[in-house]
Amino acid sequence: MAQEITPELANLVLDAQPFSKLVQARVTVFEPRRAVLEVDVRDDLLQQNGFLHGGVLSYAADNALTFAGGSVLGASVLTSGFSIEYLRPGKGVLLSARAHVLESTRRRAVCRCDLVMIDSEGTERLVAAAQGTITLVG
Amino acid sequence: MAQEITPELANLVLDAQPFSKLVQARVTVFEPRRAVLEVDVRDDLLQQNGFLHGGVLSYAADNALTFAGGSVLGASVLTSGFSIEYLRPGKGVLLSARAHVLESTRRRAVCRCDLVMIDSEGTERLVAAAQGTITLVG
Amino acid sequence: MAQEITPELANLVLDAQPFSKLVQARVTVFEPRRAVLEVDVRDDLLQQNGFLHGGVLSYAADNALTFAGGSVLGASVLTSGFSIEYLRPGKGVLLSARAHVLESTRRRAVCRCDLVMIDSEGTERLVAAAQGTITLVG
Amino acid sequence: MAQEITPELANLVLDAQPFSKLVQARVTVFEPRRAVLEVDVRDDLLQQNGFLHGGVLSYAADNALTFAGGSVLGASVLTSGFSIEYLRPGKGVLLSARAHVLESTRRRAVCRCDLVMIDSEGTERLVAAAQGTITLVG
Repeated sequence: MAQEITPELANLVLDAQPFSKLVQARVTVFEPRRAVLEVDVRDDLLQQNGFLHGGVLSYAADNALTFAGGSVLGASVLTSGFSIEYLRPGKGVLLSARAHVLESTRRRAVCRCDLVMIDSEGTERLVAAAQGTITLVG
Repeated sequence: MAQEITPELANLVLDAQPFSKLVQARVTVFEPRRAVLEVDVRDDLLQQNGFLHGGVLSYAADNALTFAGGSVLGASVLTSGFSIEYLRPGKGVLLSARAHVLESTRRRAVCRCDLVMIDSEGTERLVAAAQGTITLVG
Repeated sequence: MAQEITPELANLVLDAQPFSKLVQARVTVFEPRRAVLEVDVRDDLLQQNGFLHGGVLSYAADNALTFAGGSVLGASVLTSGFSIEYLRPGKGVLLSARAHVLESTRRRAVCRCDLVMIDSEGTERLVAAAQGTITLVG
Repeated sequence: MAQEITPELANLVLDAQPFSKLVQARVTVFEPRRAVLEVDVRDDLLQQNGFLHGGVLSYAADNALTFAGGSVLGASVLTSGFSIEYLRPGKGVLLSARAHVLESTRRRAVCRCDLVMIDSEGTERLVAAAQGTITLVG
């Protein structure tokens, strides 16, 4: 990317994704090797027991991993695949999906993402963990 | 589950998940060892290039895997973790997430899910594949 | 591959892998979209409780997935990554790692592998399941 | 574990695993939340191109993840499943599989493992990354 790597740039991409607008996600950190995507918890993101739906966690993991990979590989990337392990119910007011590049070559980046829920008092709790490979396209 | 395993039962659970209502997912098959979850493609489920957002695919995989596991383990289950491999862009008018139980013990089920996109002429194409472990709670 | 796809061809590759010789693995099926790798259970492949070591299962999954992918992509492939879910202890006299290509593009194949243990009476039992992406090199 | 958590204890377990003796693995770090397993590269652990066989990497990842999980959950644990992403060929004289507990509950631990190859001059290079869930048995 000739453009500077900033959260503003990442949010332009995010705003061009209708599904990310539906979820109302935002990128709060986007710098070389690191991206953080946040989602405010609201009623229509929950599952039947009142916790954040696992699908929101996997969406956030997927997107944060891709942004982290894109921060080193450039804008033309896609997620080749990822795995996610759930540890606890998603309880809190804010989801913070914190991804970083563990290592990259010219065409691929192996990235990890910690999925942290933050409650109304600011207490953080890791609820899930993801890992995946981001690949340069073309 | 004392209740009969039917798509109607699964849709009651799905309708109790606000996020599934936001996505407008429905269960079309729910029988012992098998579940199919479908999502009509619409504008607000896309990513920036006009394809179905990867997060919708991972949401559908996660939920379909859980329903498949629940069909043999009962209603009190959770997804311990899953992995997803993306193969092609999600192009088409309908997503069909087809999950089955590969094998189960009393407390765990290993399930797989094929993520198939169907175009307006009914042509099917596999776009991603998922695999995960569903665990009995408590 | 200009060469015919046969188990003999696959075993030539396997015999060129010192670690596969140490494990004493063999390929019994190698045909377009499918590969089966077998390992006779013997004492030095076990873990501390007398079951087949998980590392033998993951080795077999990895190799069988790669052969399956190679059957459609050609000889110059590598495993980009894979996940494995363990369901039961590896009990029996023979491990059969049965891999197939779920779907492939020109450069990538998403493959799955069923890890089956066979006891002395021929009874088969699935003990683990794997899924991964095989990529064409260069 | 009432016993003190030391590398000596971990090596007792490892020595009771015939397959780990075949591979000649050793535990060099075993402390609460962390385990390192090392393997000297030797000819019969290679693949056909002279690199460390991917099966040795996945074996080491699996075992290191299990030890890390066991350091917080106790000795009666098993690996529920894990995923591994390969980034580079395994070139060097020593494999160091460095696992840590990311987060744990009473019955489960989500662990990650960095697979690092070290060459004869001591230069380290990450070649693969793993993540998995370790579960308390019984």
